[in-house]
Amino acid sequence: MSSTATASNTTAPTQILQVSGHSYAYRRFGNGSGLPLLCLQHFTGTLDNWDPAVTDPLASGREVILFENAGIGRSSGDVPETVAGMTKHALAFLDGLSLAECDVLGFSLGGMIAQQAAQDRPSIVHRMILVGTAPRGGEDIMHLEKPSLAKHLQDPQNRGYAVLQKIFFAPTATSQAAGGAFISRLMQRQDDREPPSGPNVAKAQTAAFREWEHFSGERFADVKGLRHPTLVVQGFHDEMIPVRNSYWLAENLPNAALLAYPDAGHGSLFQYPESFTRQAAAFLSSDSEPAVF
Amino acid sequence: MSSTATASNTTAPTQILQVSGHSYAYRRFGNGSGLPLLCLQHFTGTLDNWDPAVTDPLASGREVILFENAGIGRSSGDVPETVAGMTKHALAFLDGLSLAECDVLGFSLGGMIAQQAAQDRPSIVHRMILVGTAPRGGEDIMHLEKPSLAKHLQDPQNRGYAVLQKIFFAPTATSQAAGGAFISRLMQRQDDREPPSGPNVAKAQTAAFREWEHFSGERFADVKGLRHPTLVVQGFHDEMIPVRNSYWLAENLPNAALLAYPDAGHGSLFQYPESFTRQAAAFLSSDSEPAVF
Repeated sequence: MSSTATASNTTAPTQILQVSGHSYAYRRFGNGSGLPLLCLQHFTGTLDNWDPAVTDPLASGREVILFENAGIGRSSGDVPETVAGMTKHALAFLDGLSLAECDVLGFSLGGMIAQQAAQDRPSIVHRMILVGTAPRGGEDIMHLEKPSLAKHLQDPQNRGYAVLQKIFFAPTATSQAAGGAFISRLMQRQDDREPPSGPNVAKAQTAAFREWEHFSGERFADVKGLRHPTLVVQGFHDEMIPVRNSYWLAENLPNAALLAYPDAGHGSLFQYPESFTRQAAAFLSSDSEPAVF
Repeated sequence: MSSTATASNTTAPTQILQVSGHSYAYRRFGNGSGLPLLCLQHFTGTLDNWDPAVTDPLASGREVILFENAGIGRSSGDVPETVAGMTKHALAFLDGLSLAECDVLGFSLGGMIAQQAAQDRPSIVHRMILVGTAPRGGEDIMHLEKPSLAKHLQDPQNRGYAVLQKIFFAPTATSQAAGGAFISRLMQRQDDREPPSGPNVAKAQTAAFREWEHFSGERFADVKGLRHPTLVVQGFHDEMIPVRNSYWLAENLPNAALLAYPDAGHGSLFQYPESFTRQAAAFLSSDSEPAVF
């Protein structure tokens, strides 16, 4: 295993791992006694969308591994149109790194991949942190055509990262200010940035969200089978994946605690990075069998 | 202000405060830089129903004040049939202690009194921790006639505290074991115990629950007006006050975080006292304007 000398997503070099004909872009930094933490990214997000205020404090107790799924940034291949397809790439990547076990932080789409990975390969996932996400069979998952979201996405003033301030944060002055600070932190990395995602990425990932809303048989049966200690985190005012999805997720996972934040939208972890990383580190460091910390 | 020499609910003497013709029984112990923490008790509970594994760690950073409302234990008077009436006694008690500001831990019925106190006298409440409770207008609040609860309450084998193990904890082996440990801790206090509550207490407090389920005008408008930083805590498997009441409470309070526990019922704070007191102390010690910690 290789490790970078730096411990920040602002400076960590982007590396490329070749596995079975695929090239996966990733960054890996930090150290400590904890298991490596695999970070799985949101809709259209690249490695550059990880907030250093979230990744860097966590990297003080463990290696943080940011993974870019197929077809995103400098990772090769096509973007899968199902969460299951994306999960195959994530598992191939971990196999390529010879990592037999890790903790997982999955945000939004990344939280769905984390759940699928825990289902497909239970032994490789130790503890999970699932932020702003939904179980299979959830509702109102990333419907960007909704007026409350479309008005921001179609506003020509919201170019590039600026739209994230609108759709990841609540419409209050306090949350919007936190969103502005988040955008500034994403811009701290000067060099070696990833190419932003294009419309083909959005199209394939949206298909994956639609597929994830479907279920057959007993609703939420998939998550009922996951015994992994899990921390579910959500903002009460998430317009992209409403908080009731986190209620369903945490209620049906047999061993999950739920932490929900006030005055926060989809990007609650980026709004309160000090609280989030403190709670996440306590959860990851715990050896309690129940997911309490 | 007087303070006891001990710092445990197992040994703290029961004191009596005379205020405006009422006698209120209470215990007061602990010290530290934090504001005093007023603890408001559940349905039919006396001072002896406070788990030392919860009160004592909190008493290492602040004074803990356990209050017995009118008509309970050795407190004089009739048990009010409304939460508002109980709140008047709690405020009179604080006035009698010359406490102008405190933090409040309200469990179940006590959480309703905490909300009412924050509404009636906003300045006296600094931060609130509301466990296993509901906002005015909540649903399915303490319906002991439900089969899932009645079967335990009507079982002659469940005498005294034994019934609490059944109705405060989830029906799993792990939760029931935690319930047994809780009962043992309640029995650690040997002397100077309170008289248990009789049927008249249950009858009046049940009337208060029924009144609390009613609302007029906009639902949850009362809590929308409370700006106090609040931590809402709940077990996912609470049969006495289902968890959706905590969702409504935390979603409608403008500044509340929610922490929900797996494999736990009504008594989640007693099931996980180490986690609960660690999180509660962090919340109470925080000077963050948002209720994040």
